[in-house]
Amino acid sequence: MSGTWGNRIKISIFGESHGEAIGAVIDGLPPGIKLDMEAIKFQMKRRAPGQSDITTARKEEDEFQILSGYFNGYTTGTPLAFIIKNKDARSSDYEYIKDIPRPGHGDYTGGVKYKGYNDYRGGGHFSGRITAPIVFIGAICRQILESKGIYIVSHIKNIGSIDDDSFDAIHIDEDLIRRLNTMRLPLIADEKIKDMEAEILSAKADEDSIGGSIECAVVGLPAGVGGPFFDSVESRLSYILFSIPGVKGVEFGSGFYITRMRGSEANDEFCIQDGVVKTKTNHSGGIQGGITNGMPVIFRVAIKPTSSIGKKQRSVDMTKMEEVEFEIKGRHDPCIVPRAVPVVEAAAAIAILDLYI
Amino acid sequence: MSGTWGNRIKISIFGESHGEAIGAVIDGLPPGIKLDMEAIKFQMKRRAPGQSDITTARKEEDEFQILSGYFNGYTTGTPLAFIIKNKDARSSDYEYIKDIPRPGHGDYTGGVKYKGYNDYRGGGHFSGRITAPIVFIGAICRQILESKGIYIVSHIKNIGSIDDDSFDAIHIDEDLIRRLNTMRLPLIADEKIKDMEAEILSAKADEDSIGGSIECAVVGLPAGVGGPFFDSVESRLSYILFSIPGVKGVEFGSGFYITRMRGSEANDEFCIQDGVVKTKTNHSGGIQGGITNGMPVIFRVAIKPTSSIGKKQRSVDMTKMEEVEFEIKGRHDPCIVPRAVPVVEAAAAIAILDLYI
Amino acid sequence: MSGTWGNRIKISIFGESHGEAIGAVIDGLPPGIKLDMEAIKFQMKRRAPGQSDITTARKEEDEFQILSGYFNGYTTGTPLAFIIKNKDARSSDYEYIKDIPRPGHGDYTGGVKYKGYNDYRGGGHFSGRITAPIVFIGAICRQILESKGIYIVSHIKNIGSIDDDSFDAIHIDEDLIRRLNTMRLPLIADEKIKDMEAEILSAKADEDSIGGSIECAVVGLPAGVGGPFFDSVESRLSYILFSIPGVKGVEFGSGFYITRMRGSEANDEFCIQDGVVKTKTNHSGGIQGGITNGMPVIFRVAIKPTSSIGKKQRSVDMTKMEEVEFEIKGRHDPCIVPRAVPVVEAAAAIAILDLYI
Amino acid sequence: MSGTWGNRIKISIFGESHGEAIGAVIDGLPPGIKLDMEAIKFQMKRRAPGQSDITTARKEEDEFQILSGYFNGYTTGTPLAFIIKNKDARSSDYEYIKDIPRPGHGDYTGGVKYKGYNDYRGGGHFSGRITAPIVFIGAICRQILESKGIYIVSHIKNIGSIDDDSFDAIHIDEDLIRRLNTMRLPLIADEKIKDMEAEILSAKADEDSIGGSIECAVVGLPAGVGGPFFDSVESRLSYILFSIPGVKGVEFGSGFYITRMRGSEANDEFCIQDGVVKTKTNHSGGIQGGITNGMPVIFRVAIKPTSSIGKKQRSVDMTKMEEVEFEIKGRHDPCIVPRAVPVVEAAAAIAILDLYI
Repeated sequence: MSGTWGNRIKISIFGESHGEAIGAVIDGLPPGIKLDMEAIKFQMKRRAPGQSDITTARKEEDEFQILSGYFNGYTTGTPLAFIIKNKDARSSDYEYIKDIPRPGHGDYTGGVKYKGYNDYRGGGHFSGRITAPIVFIGAICRQILESKGIYIVSHIKNIGSIDDDSFDAIHIDEDLIRRLNTMRLPLIADEKIKDMEAEILSAKADEDSIGGSIECAVVGLPAGVGGPFFDSVESRLSYILFSIPGVKGVEFGSGFYITRMRGSEANDEFCIQDGVVKTKTNHSGGIQGGITNGMPVIFRVAIKPTSSIGKKQRSVDMTKMEEVEFEIKGRHDPCIVPRAVPVVEAAAAIAILDLYI
Repeated sequence: MSGTWGNRIKISIFGESHGEAIGAVIDGLPPGIKLDMEAIKFQMKRRAPGQSDITTARKEEDEFQILSGYFNGYTTGTPLAFIIKNKDARSSDYEYIKDIPRPGHGDYTGGVKYKGYNDYRGGGHFSGRITAPIVFIGAICRQILESKGIYIVSHIKNIGSIDDDSFDAIHIDEDLIRRLNTMRLPLIADEKIKDMEAEILSAKADEDSIGGSIECAVVGLPAGVGGPFFDSVESRLSYILFSIPGVKGVEFGSGFYITRMRGSEANDEFCIQDGVVKTKTNHSGGIQGGITNGMPVIFRVAIKPTSSIGKKQRSVDMTKMEEVEFEIKGRHDPCIVPRAVPVVEAAAAIAILDLYI
Repeated sequence: MSGTWGNRIKISIFGESHGEAIGAVIDGLPPGIKLDMEAIKFQMKRRAPGQSDITTARKEEDEFQILSGYFNGYTTGTPLAFIIKNKDARSSDYEYIKDIPRPGHGDYTGGVKYKGYNDYRGGGHFSGRITAPIVFIGAICRQILESKGIYIVSHIKNIGSIDDDSFDAIHIDEDLIRRLNTMRLPLIADEKIKDMEAEILSAKADEDSIGGSIECAVVGLPAGVGGPFFDSVESRLSYILFSIPGVKGVEFGSGFYITRMRGSEANDEFCIQDGVVKTKTNHSGGIQGGITNGMPVIFRVAIKPTSSIGKKQRSVDMTKMEEVEFEIKGRHDPCIVPRAVPVVEAAAAIAILDLYI
Repeated sequence: MSGTWGNRIKISIFGESHGEAIGAVIDGLPPGIKLDMEAIKFQMKRRAPGQSDITTARKEEDEFQILSGYFNGYTTGTPLAFIIKNKDARSSDYEYIKDIPRPGHGDYTGGVKYKGYNDYRGGGHFSGRITAPIVFIGAICRQILESKGIYIVSHIKNIGSIDDDSFDAIHIDEDLIRRLNTMRLPLIADEKIKDMEAEILSAKADEDSIGGSIECAVVGLPAGVGGPFFDSVESRLSYILFSIPGVKGVEFGSGFYITRMRGSEANDEFCIQDGVVKTKTNHSGGIQGGITNGMPVIFRVAIKPTSSIGKKQRSVDMTKMEEVEFEIKGRHDPCIVPRAVPVVEAAAAIAILDLYI
């Protein structure tokens, strides 16, 4: 059931990179939500390629078309389906994949799982393009959350060796949220933008790619969301975050660094602030026992370097069963991280709304 | 639906630390599995407390009783239910939690979510004790996997500042699997056992605790298990791993370190070995496009220091709404990591079998 | 996933007739429900055998024990597990089933599905005894519904050739609800009780059994519960009702008789009564487009005659693969319908609460 | 989650009668199924309106377009999405529904549930038109089942007072299957076709409608499919059958008539035929303990008369809260039963494949 997710809001995504269309069905949205089309388009555009020299030259306009569940400007409460037609695909670029799986891609594993019947063109169903429906769905969920005072914001924590600062885990102010939400390369320390761009362009110049990580915060969530065990906020968020192609790590609060700490440091002591229970530190990332405590929920996502690189690589010709050298043709992102930011935020919005509603 | 998990094998766990009993129902096991009771007891014992000076002095024998789904030594195929009765509980140790939530625990967040009705004694449903049913279920799943040549093995990657070596991501031999599976402190570099014990005992001497991480491998899985998006091996594994109390990070293959890499390094090139397609490196942790490629599946899990420490801490008295200083009574683990090893392995066994069956 | 059911309240039932215990886990109950133990015991007793000469002589006390999710008299909100220990089982009565499947039972089909590993004693997991956990769960759900003014009531519509009257589909008054809820043989036309008992005793005298049907109403449900398609009230109710062993038909409102009607008769015209929209007739059984309209939800359930009869029957000896004549030993109900009444009501309570909550 | 169904094959349907398009996503289809487009079109055409004087004059060509999951003539194994664009809709015919709910329709209940935001035109999501995606999905499932020797066949059991014969529950031969599968009014006793048409045309002449029932058989299913309790064949089939708009009853085997029988008659005795275990009678409809026994699975579905009739009816003007008389405009089926035949078969194919695969 690879394409279906959610308990209270059930999403069902579909599509292949070079097929007819990609899209999704969203089942369980409340009726009467006035959709802000500009806000949806804005999120779609953040993910869309072809916007600058640090992303791929491919143009995908990602024009969506709503087919159902939307009437007179409001959600109806019945399943909302939408599609994004595929265009500007050079399928011939991908003919060789049939025989020679690209290292780091799902070509080989998808071929095994689907017994050779899967659409290999442009990565098919494994393409990062299939994250566009996730961004669309996330934009709707985000709008519902924002109407309840819950905001999602993120910045690029690192690309290669260039690191941004970290969020203040205790308080993330509205100005920062607004600023990051509109930046093309969202950094807290914006003086590092040039260095980060240089890191990406250097990889691009070498016909190579570079990885990075994203730090994301959910601000304004009340205490009491989530649950112990399988409904833990960490469980549900990681479940959907690891579904994003290229994600190889997820950590909450102090994450892996907490393994170096003692309990007396890691325990977030409680205090009272403005008559409300808060914690003095936030090593837990706003989650204890799987349930939010009212502090910002903070997590980081590790994203591997784009697998598609121009450099010569070695692989195997599956029909001849011999090792070969080959080059990937086509136009690719030297770094997927900037375009992954809205995808990570969308996935978070979906998971949080599914727990919260 | 905090206690229910799984698609093909559905588990439903229940229980509170100081209640009548803990246990689970397993729905969907195939009929005719001859259960190896000694192997189940062995796994239960690995998790049980009270075994040495680096774990809590509490004695939990974790004697399980199978109630259904098991007949004449074989699984019947109908739901298998089992219970573990609770004993040796000093509930009076926990009376104060009603008013003063312990930092790092689910006392506060559970109280908010369950509106004060949850059983607070010993952490109630949030207790690490509820991982015993997971170990039991995992022991059965593990046995089924082993009958197919699939083995799960792990070692402690670090406790505080003491690091073990890493798995050879390309090949993990049977001797190492056997050795690690029976060690009390499973380390690849066993000359470090003394240092690691010292790290734990030092925290204990300070009435404090210490965190750590576990590296786990699934060896022998064929290519083609998992799926893109929501059925990705990373998604399903992280979903259940983050359900284990205390887990704050999960990473696959090179994990967060991959964010420092270029694609030309991170891409695992294909080769042919003994007539079979393999990869030369394993930065992806044996998973591409969410699907296994036949190499070892490798992941690491970050576990925070035990929240229960003897040291004085500050919290809030919820009835008086004022900050207070207090001490946690009772007997606790200075480091939960060694006892978490069989839990992580059990969770992995459940997730892998659910995808594989 | 034979034993797991529900979307918002997830139940997981388990057990075999002659195993250690039967029971269930209920996941998703709200916290703070004060359980009325006497009301639960009352429902359990309605289902229990051994109460008069029209039911089996077997004694099952159905003493339940709550293991978790219940603290200081209230539900905690965490999974509630309970067991009912098995007693008074004469397993030797059932040894022959291994080889000779009883007509009308799940002996043959269960043997095929579970490859001969299932517990055949007393029908094993196929036993009507496994409905006891459903009654327990239903009693809790019923209590929650009653606190919202929603009542479930039923009567025996027919046993063999003896028919009771039908519910007034427009209005079912509180007196009738109270009366039927406490009758051993709940009939609207109570002058027919003697005839119905005679019908049952006549079958018993012939070492035979007799079928019957139950008409059930859910009164007080507001309009707007359910949904089109797969969440329709009819879909969810029938899904769980057909899970009760022996049920072979379910119909809503005018049911099969509506196939003889014209639209001008079957359409329930709307009217206004006391300022509220009502319907003048109730051929739809209170459900249009899968959603309640505020009128009583009415349905009927067909229950086949008990399969276990004393009369000689023909079957097949599976080891010798030859036809044989045989007699079923043991003590059995000549008519399961009276004991099925609380089971049908419990299943309805579970389904309705799952849609309503 | 009204639009999502299935365990192993998950379907997600969407659409409104007068919206942009209707369709569905099918998740979990095996890869490598060669789709027979003519067979799919044939099933779609059986359901399509406008084919004769006994159905509505509306023309719906139901031209479907596959968007994903299908490549080079085969299913890929990834989610298969398809749409059917809406045409020939006279939305203005339905403007009055906003205020005056039509008796027997989901206008009133949908308005309550969706708080007035649902698309009311042509019944919106409640329209029988949304069964077209179910027929499409069923046609694919049917093709997979047929490749395993499993056939689905049905006939109209009655329309109003005109009854067809019943299936021979023991043996349904291939000739009959072939014949019924291609008849416009599938009757076993084809001499009754004229009477049945007359029954429909008489209702039409009166600007009224008429109900009916369908008897359906699944032939060739092996023993061992289904399960006790919630996976019973009856549970899963009824769950999806009652999702079809207009269905008010479902019964298996002898159904409600079994309530008049004694066990000695109702029990299907086993025998051996051609070395295989069979039953001599088939009152159980091929299902014991929720599991198939290898005999034909037989069930009947009650379908109410079309709610849309031309006759004057009384309802309520919701804005003025007063009773009114009104007439439904538009073109409607005098009897939905013939067009429901392929829908019932499709739903059965989906449920059976979901259990069988």
